[in-house]
Amino acid sequence: MSHLENRRIVLAARPKGEPRISDFRLETVAVAEPADGQVLLEILYLSLDPYMRGRMSAAKSYARPVEIGEVMEGGTVARVIASRHPDFGKGDIVCSYSGWQSLAISDGSDLRKLDPSLAPPSTALGVLGMPGFTAYSGLLTIGKPAAGETVVVAAASGAVGSAVGQIARIKGARAVGIAGGPEKCAFARDELGFDAVVDHRAGNLAEQLADACPDGIDVYFENVGGAVWGAVFPLLNEFARIPVCGLIAHYNDEGTAPSGPDRLPGLMRAILTKSLTIRGFIQREFADQRPAFYREATEWLASGKLRYKEDIVDGLENAPDAFIGLLKGRNFGKLVVRVAA
Amino acid sequence: MSHLENRRIVLAARPKGEPRISDFRLETVAVAEPADGQVLLEILYLSLDPYMRGRMSAAKSYARPVEIGEVMEGGTVARVIASRHPDFGKGDIVCSYSGWQSLAISDGSDLRKLDPSLAPPSTALGVLGMPGFTAYSGLLTIGKPAAGETVVVAAASGAVGSAVGQIARIKGARAVGIAGGPEKCAFARDELGFDAVVDHRAGNLAEQLADACPDGIDVYFENVGGAVWGAVFPLLNEFARIPVCGLIAHYNDEGTAPSGPDRLPGLMRAILTKSLTIRGFIQREFADQRPAFYREATEWLASGKLRYKEDIVDGLENAPDAFIGLLKGRNFGKLVVRVAA
Repeated sequence: MSHLENRRIVLAARPKGEPRISDFRLETVAVAEPADGQVLLEILYLSLDPYMRGRMSAAKSYARPVEIGEVMEGGTVARVIASRHPDFGKGDIVCSYSGWQSLAISDGSDLRKLDPSLAPPSTALGVLGMPGFTAYSGLLTIGKPAAGETVVVAAASGAVGSAVGQIARIKGARAVGIAGGPEKCAFARDELGFDAVVDHRAGNLAEQLADACPDGIDVYFENVGGAVWGAVFPLLNEFARIPVCGLIAHYNDEGTAPSGPDRLPGLMRAILTKSLTIRGFIQREFADQRPAFYREATEWLASGKLRYKEDIVDGLENAPDAFIGLLKGRNFGKLVVRVAA
Repeated sequence: MSHLENRRIVLAARPKGEPRISDFRLETVAVAEPADGQVLLEILYLSLDPYMRGRMSAAKSYARPVEIGEVMEGGTVARVIASRHPDFGKGDIVCSYSGWQSLAISDGSDLRKLDPSLAPPSTALGVLGMPGFTAYSGLLTIGKPAAGETVVVAAASGAVGSAVGQIARIKGARAVGIAGGPEKCAFARDELGFDAVVDHRAGNLAEQLADACPDGIDVYFENVGGAVWGAVFPLLNEFARIPVCGLIAHYNDEGTAPSGPDRLPGLMRAILTKSLTIRGFIQREFADQRPAFYREATEWLASGKLRYKEDIVDGLENAPDAFIGLLKGRNFGKLVVRVAA
């Protein structure tokens, strides 16, 4: 086994603004055999997600940054190709957190066995994985959509947004999506069942959104920031809830505040006069809800209430370019890298 | 009875920026006898509170504005001087919402009988009334201070702030107050028992506050906005909670956003990376907690765990000037107008 070579992508430099290809480096290193209590994994799929941009920066956040020279972090689906761990056998398909590489050693603590008869394994990185659970936990715990309320989410065809809209509808709320371009909008409306969809590339976002939300907005699931926030803000109803799970429009910002006017006092005034709730979260803090999520989401998937779209890129070496595109909205559906067939 | 004359203060003009004396007008009108099911009230005390600035503006808020020519709204303590209501007798002392006037008719629906043997009736406007309940409900429901956590509140010698700090201490948290001038600071520290107090008039607010909060801030009870927010913001810990009950520093702002830099993206980023909760509220929405509040706060008052200070101004005619001073922090303690002896 010791002749096995691991291909891995490490952080070569901290990006200034938008990441560039040169911020990543592909390396090849030998992998040792698994020790007692360990398994050797062959990575099948690597998930690419916007949060990874945060890990590339040294700025303080809820997670420690990836250090220069370290393997980029990421969720993965893998096959056990050698095992000296009592709970895992050769051939098992598992969800792991092995990062941007082709092989990995694990002590089992980060592994969750998948049953390929229930759903395609790659869904463990999307609709049945972290993005789906982000949507589920943030929407239901913080957003608390009631029947008849209006829920707005951007990146509506993406991994998180598509689940937010569909789960909102399952709970009887009206789902309004925002997406970029006619193709993504049609998908969100026709395939995912959003009640209304607004194309942020068509201009007049504020007007379009106001037309799509005649009764205002009760829940805004924030995963983008930027111009979408500006369109959402005046439409927020009294007691509106805003789970904040991401701010993709700002991930490339440098540390300094942009020029004015200063919108902070206006936001605080609205928080006060409309009794708004704004709450940042990461899905980890709701870990005790994961069993309920896996059970419910698997049922919804089987019954067709919850649909998904994957955007699969072939080859680990293409991960950096695909990730850069993700931050620009170039993907269409959950972005996954197929690392091995 | 029909010869009785009511003195009342009405809104004469909507203020632009700081209210002026000329925005109010004192009128004298005749009062009719109470009809069947009504009582006639003689107002003893009128509460003056920062929220009233909002009622003077036409801007949309959680409450409708006072119209030009209408009596200014406000909480009051009154004596029943004539009753045709089965539940109230002449001489009863009640808490009412009669506004800035000397006499009022009520159908009883806004009245709560007070027991003067339990506490001085004027406390029904402060520590045992709306301000105390604002502190209690916002701090415990949204702020949820845990033992050992740091709770920060401004206007620490005021009606709401003084209760926030003391209730935080009752729950085992460390209370850090902000107040204006050495007299208020000494009172908050020595009489109210705040663990640390910072004087916002002494300069270096950010540094002083950082020194007073070596473990950061877990709960910031927001009742002022302005410069205090700027000092608090960098000290907020992960999972910090921010109940927003008032923004006195901004009540005189005109509608336009101030010049930059734009602090909104930085706030949203902190909400995300620190998993902050910011939640605006008015005490009304927690009305079901009032019985528990009256019971607990009355006990705390009796046992000396909860103290208060009143700033009593004599004469209804002096209410406008006292209210203008309140918005500038001129009062020292809960501001109450003694309308009748």
